[in-house]
Amino acid sequence: MEGEPGVGEVDAAAHMKHWASCVDDVLNRFIPDGGGEPTEIFRIMRYSLFAGGKRLRPVLCVAGCEAVGGDPEEVIPAACALECIHTYSLIHDDLPAMDDDDMRRGNPTSHKVFGEAAAILGGDGLLTLAFELMANEEMVTAAGPDRVLASSRLLAKAAGASGMVGGQLLDVRAGEEPGGTTGLEEIHRRKTSAMIRASVMIGGLLGGGGSEQIACLSLYGFKAGLAFQIVDDILDVEGDTKLMGKSTGADAILDKVTYPALYGLDVSRKMARQAIDEAIGALSVFPGGAPALASLAQFIVLRRF
Amino acid sequence: MEGEPGVGEVDAAAHMKHWASCVDDVLNRFIPDGGGEPTEIFRIMRYSLFAGGKRLRPVLCVAGCEAVGGDPEEVIPAACALECIHTYSLIHDDLPAMDDDDMRRGNPTSHKVFGEAAAILGGDGLLTLAFELMANEEMVTAAGPDRVLASSRLLAKAAGASGMVGGQLLDVRAGEEPGGTTGLEEIHRRKTSAMIRASVMIGGLLGGGGSEQIACLSLYGFKAGLAFQIVDDILDVEGDTKLMGKSTGADAILDKVTYPALYGLDVSRKMARQAIDEAIGALSVFPGGAPALASLAQFIVLRRF
Repeated sequence: MEGEPGVGEVDAAAHMKHWASCVDDVLNRFIPDGGGEPTEIFRIMRYSLFAGGKRLRPVLCVAGCEAVGGDPEEVIPAACALECIHTYSLIHDDLPAMDDDDMRRGNPTSHKVFGEAAAILGGDGLLTLAFELMANEEMVTAAGPDRVLASSRLLAKAAGASGMVGGQLLDVRAGEEPGGTTGLEEIHRRKTSAMIRASVMIGGLLGGGGSEQIACLSLYGFKAGLAFQIVDDILDVEGDTKLMGKSTGADAILDKVTYPALYGLDVSRKMARQAIDEAIGALSVFPGGAPALASLAQFIVLRRF
Repeated sequence: MEGEPGVGEVDAAAHMKHWASCVDDVLNRFIPDGGGEPTEIFRIMRYSLFAGGKRLRPVLCVAGCEAVGGDPEEVIPAACALECIHTYSLIHDDLPAMDDDDMRRGNPTSHKVFGEAAAILGGDGLLTLAFELMANEEMVTAAGPDRVLASSRLLAKAAGASGMVGGQLLDVRAGEEPGGTTGLEEIHRRKTSAMIRASVMIGGLLGGGGSEQIACLSLYGFKAGLAFQIVDDILDVEGDTKLMGKSTGADAILDKVTYPALYGLDVSRKMARQAIDEAIGALSVFPGGAPALASLAQFIVLRRF
């Protein structure tokens, strides 16, 4: 998990920075600072949306579009939608009824600042905004309505009851039965991998990718998502508060099922590395091996997120 | 607010019953009893979705489609989406952090049965499912992708931060300042009218309505939504627990801003009647005055909901 970034990773860093900034510009357009009526709900949404997220899902979406030869500018509304959904899930996960986290990325969580009711509603507002962005008229003109609608369906499935929301409930229930080891793979497949996989697939779909290309992006996303979760679990054991911006060891305190708890740190590291190798292997179908996606996969395992 | 139903209202009752049953059939298809994985999240969503709701918004959607001469069968996925959003909003509104209601329609609320975390997630799942339904492939084929996408945008705006979610936050904040009278109209316009207006407009849009027709449906929906909220406030004062299926006087206990509190019961009744007259007046552009929509408006003020 250690080491200086190599050439590919430097490219990925620059790549991420550029597209993260494009995503921020568009988010600023849709939720203007001080604008939007009623003002407080938009302020709550902005608070979490601009709290230092690395925009991993938007950048994966952009890179998925580039891999199939599409114009990344045209998928920015979808990239913003992915970040809205990710952010809402963090707000709701942090609530007292769920993980009860006071801090996130070094800042007080939404419910600590605005109160529980407002945090629930801020999350609801972001989730709803995501689907407004997914029907963005400029994106419909650029990508065509059928690809936009297919992307919207894909996002709803990944974020919904059979994906992220269902995975989060499994996670909550697993936490209620300390020591239980069943369902770790399923929890992470639904809770984390589904959205990472959808991010890269939506980029490919909107970018005009063919069905074989989308299938390869699906495999890439699944493996990259798995690696992401394993690394996240490892960091929760190893990391320090400064690096993660939240209290570490929280999963252990909550008796959550994690990869290190189940397999130990060494095996977990090997599993993450293998998943990344498989993710990169899935890119061979693309010209040049889709360098942006390959770098992003390395980035994940080197834990820049 | 009293009286036996006349001929038009009997028609409305039969109309509602027929289309509510069609909506239930499709909801059963999308969230099958005992089906769906992971099972618990789908069970939570079904619990509130099949808790005796009258399907007002779906039926308004169907009636809006009929008014412009469309085929109501084709808008059923959108009608189901509207009910999913309405149901999620009830689950979240009932949470301890919001209205803290133990009972809804004579049954324990979601968080009383499944716990707070599960209720939050059940609501999130329904909200997400709504947008999956809005991109339903059969509906896209029937109504065309452009009308489907326009409907999806309309729904997201009505349900989101500038509509229902924003209105709910205004309502929460108004409750925190007992005695405050500002913003009653705005709260209800956003919190209730926006979704009722969107329901009938989406039916008209997907049914192939022209822009003048959609504008008339918009006015109808706005006025009918206003009447609905005034009647709801009146019933909260007048009603008994059996009729409403929830503890009455709750709004008074919470010191909420209501029409009777601001204007008294008599004036509130007159306001509701006037709003319904204006709603029905907006229907003159339609052949036969759109009898289903006219009956539904009467239904609202006679408080069958």
